Amino acid sequence: MTIENKKQMKIIKIGGNIINNQEALDSFLTNFHQIEGPKILVHGGGKLASELSNKLNIPVQMIDGRRITDTETLDIITMVYAGKINKNIVAKLQANQVNALGFTGADGQTILAKKRPSKPIDYGYAGDVVDVNISTLELLIKQHITPVFCAITHDTKGNLLNTNADTIASELAIAFGKYYRTELYYCFDKQGVLKDVQDSTSVIERMHFKEYQQLKKEQVIFEGMIPKLDNCFHALQNNVSQVHIGTTEMLFNTTTHTLLQLQ
Amino acid sequence: MTIENKKQMKIIKIGGNIINNQEALDSFLTNFHQIEGPKILVHGGGKLASELSNKLNIPVQMIDGRRITDTETLDIITMVYAGKINKNIVAKLQANQVNALGFTGADGQTILAKKRPSKPIDYGYAGDVVDVNISTLELLIKQHITPVFCAITHDTKGNLLNTNADTIASELAIAFGKYYRTELYYCFDKQGVLKDVQDSTSVIERMHFKEYQQLKKEQVIFEGMIPKLDNCFHALQNNVSQVHIGTTEMLFNTTTHTLLQLQ
Repeated sequence: MTIENKKQMKIIKIGGNIINNQEALDSFLTNFHQIEGPKILVHGGGKLASELSNKLNIPVQMIDGRRITDTETLDIITMVYAGKINKNIVAKLQANQVNALGFTGADGQTILAKKRPSKPIDYGYAGDVVDVNISTLELLIKQHITPVFCAITHDTKGNLLNTNADTIASELAIAFGKYYRTELYYCFDKQGVLKDVQDSTSVIERMHFKEYQQLKKEQVIFEGMIPKLDNCFHALQNNVSQVHIGTTEMLFNTTTHTLLQLQ
Repeated sequence: MTIENKKQMKIIKIGGNIINNQEALDSFLTNFHQIEGPKILVHGGGKLASELSNKLNIPVQMIDGRRITDTETLDIITMVYAGKINKNIVAKLQANQVNALGFTGADGQTILAKKRPSKPIDYGYAGDVVDVNISTLELLIKQHITPVFCAITHDTKGNLLNTNADTIASELAIAFGKYYRTELYYCFDKQGVLKDVQDSTSVIERMHFKEYQQLKKEQVIFEGMIPKLDNCFHALQNNVSQVHIGTTEMLFNTTTHTLLQLQ
């Protein structure tokens, strides 16, 4: 099958800057139906989980921006991500012409992960994705249903696992990329990857893998973006056609953002 | 289509006595795969929601056993029912040969409800079921996926609504009853409907509608069971073939329980 004949799929990831801002989230969900074609929405939700931890006097422990997930914290993220955030997104989409259905990786056996090794750092119930099974998702998408994923997977042994939302998005995109022409959209609070982190207008509008390697070497790319961009190019090297990085505006209008392609 | 030719469906509702007892819940979920044929699991979860309300200093207000659901309480039940309880059940079923997928009524537009009128009692975000759409559920069941419902619906205007789990089970059974030979199982802490509420061995093993009316007239039926039984006979009058009331044991073995039939 040539790439032109492939069915299309969009994987859209929204992060904390939208989840934590009710007005921005409502506006995004109201407009979501305008995004054409089959799609999957993936959301994070870190700040609300930490707020609930604080209210319940459960310590929030983060290392390198990743949450240490003990049993009590796993309960909190399950309640906040899979309950409060996910179900409110689903209900709001239903009110706006989108037939949505909420998922963790445990639902429909979609995303299998394994608990991260406890050395060098014990992150507790944190999961690294091992396998993605798209058959149930395909079935639903054919019925014009939009799956909405929170950042939780499972180990098939009965344990839920806290899993990075960016990774869930890229792993879904890679799995669909085998059969679909897949585009991955990372929505965050900037218009794209910046040449100068102090200058929000310095968006790199297109970047191929060779340019990325060069810019990384020249230390032009802001250090904090490197794991994200490595993850994006990993997706591009594994069947994903395009990766877009920018604000949610890029989904609705021709607006400045970063487009990553392999070549 | 005669009833003999109809496909079969089991709707199984489990209540607080199982949800609140980790050992009983684990044992039930381990054995669940032994229940033959297509099925849907419906769960309540009241006690855990009240516990979280208490920890967060949010008042728990109940009238006639029904929870007054203000905005904060709606968040709590969404976190506990759709998050913690639902996703742990799904993960445990996945570990025990059952491909489960969690639902609220908002997911896949399955259960539409309307907010209960604020008079005579304002229950807040409490919903009464208006319509059940089985098409997405049927699609999943054909793929041997077991939907797992928590007691939350939506109003299609973006609001989630707290909805009685017994009602969700009976409304699902009624909706499937049009096309399937549907059996409804209510699992609780007694072996069935008792003739003498003080005597746990006084189970009424079979009860037809006429007998029920007679026993109700004679005030033999314990008052607290009447809304539950009215609900069961309402289901039987609307396409449901059989209603079983007893402990979860009735799903796995030939054990004493109450079987309700219309005639």
